[in-house]
Amino acid sequence: MKDQSPLENLRVVLSRPRHPGNIGATARAMKTMGVMRLDLVRPGRFPDPEADALASGADDVLASARVHEKLAGALEGCVLVAGFTSRPRDLSHPPRALRDAATELAAAARESAVALVFGNETTGLSNAELSQCQRMVMIPASSRYASLNLAAAVQVACYELAVAASAHSLAPARSRKRAKAEDVEALHAHIEQAMIASGFLRPAHPGRLMQRLRRLAARVELEKEEVAILRGMLASFERRRAEEG
Amino acid sequence: MKDQSPLENLRVVLSRPRHPGNIGATARAMKTMGVMRLDLVRPGRFPDPEADALASGADDVLASARVHEKLAGALEGCVLVAGFTSRPRDLSHPPRALRDAATELAAAARESAVALVFGNETTGLSNAELSQCQRMVMIPASSRYASLNLAAAVQVACYELAVAASAHSLAPARSRKRAKAEDVEALHAHIEQAMIASGFLRPAHPGRLMQRLRRLAARVELEKEEVAILRGMLASFERRRAEEG
Repeated sequence: MKDQSPLENLRVVLSRPRHPGNIGATARAMKTMGVMRLDLVRPGRFPDPEADALASGADDVLASARVHEKLAGALEGCVLVAGFTSRPRDLSHPPRALRDAATELAAAARESAVALVFGNETTGLSNAELSQCQRMVMIPASSRYASLNLAAAVQVACYELAVAASAHSLAPARSRKRAKAEDVEALHAHIEQAMIASGFLRPAHPGRLMQRLRRLAARVELEKEEVAILRGMLASFERRRAEEG
Repeated sequence: MKDQSPLENLRVVLSRPRHPGNIGATARAMKTMGVMRLDLVRPGRFPDPEADALASGADDVLASARVHEKLAGALEGCVLVAGFTSRPRDLSHPPRALRDAATELAAAARESAVALVFGNETTGLSNAELSQCQRMVMIPASSRYASLNLAAAVQVACYELAVAASAHSLAPARSRKRAKAEDVEALHAHIEQAMIASGFLRPAHPGRLMQRLRRLAARVELEKEEVAILRGMLASFERRRAEEG
């Protein structure tokens, strides 16, 4: 399909949602904005009658929702992953306001799968989860009380994406071929292993080395071919070592 | 107060809301966006424990909510009244999309009281109610399923008003310390030398390898500290080789 809506490539990922009611309300929020694909990572209870009740007319979104053991599974195939947070976090990239981020996310979704990731109701996204996101997005909120309900946050996010996808006739996306989330993860694993082998990274005292490198990679939006080059380079370093050793 | 936030002049009016849970969720949605005044017209049940439960930390909004017999009472003192509808209506003014309307509403709220009016969960605003509104506002939604939950609609509306009022601004981006050109050049030289040593880059047939890596580095705008990390990593690969060789 040539001119498919960017919304068809968009998926909402809820990581460790506790309340089934929030899952149902999320499905409804998504569907009102034309977003149909929902992925759940270790939901507290699912399926559940409370989710069904709050989904209202969005039972089809719930019925086709996929459940995963790990966040990585929910991100498979995505070229761009945006993690939502209600506060600036120490590590990784500084958060961007939703409206600014929406343009880029909608443009990317024109070509390939894009994920909007929301964390647990109480604790939000963990640092490990955020490290799998290339973008950190904040919904601007009151400094006195910034605690949006989970489904309400999804509603606002999908609304912004829908407006960005429709209102502006988007410029055609660059013809860059973005690397998929799983390929970038494999690259990180490869780098980590090579650094451990060389003694640069000591597993007992890892510090923030991998975080720094992940932040770097997230910023650059690696292309498929670039990942291949970097992995080839790493392999050559390792091979050489093996031959010489 | 001269420079008060427009949000302080904003009030949300729910006309004939049936479910107390929606009233509580509305209070929470408002407060996250800095909107504190809630007016209720003939609510189904209020106050109610269900409203309290869903208000979460916004119990103050509920506690100060005013209850009216008629819509006119809830609109007292307002210079501009915007009625929300999920579908175009026969009568009077054509609806405007929320984003377009938000600018005007936020500007008016700088000076005087402005009301955002939402109707009953099932039937929406009646024609009589809409006739008391000077603006008709639509939240753009999917043509296949446009039924936003009441509190979700309030969340999106207050979010748009808050953005329009620029009441919130994100923390300034971290001041990144960019690497100097000569340090980036030194990194490129280091990479090239390491790749030649490992056999990944053959000087006789360099291809476009270095160009690709330079393009990658240019895109990411390396920080000073990142260059140091990457060079340290390369050095560890080389050292290890030397020790093993």
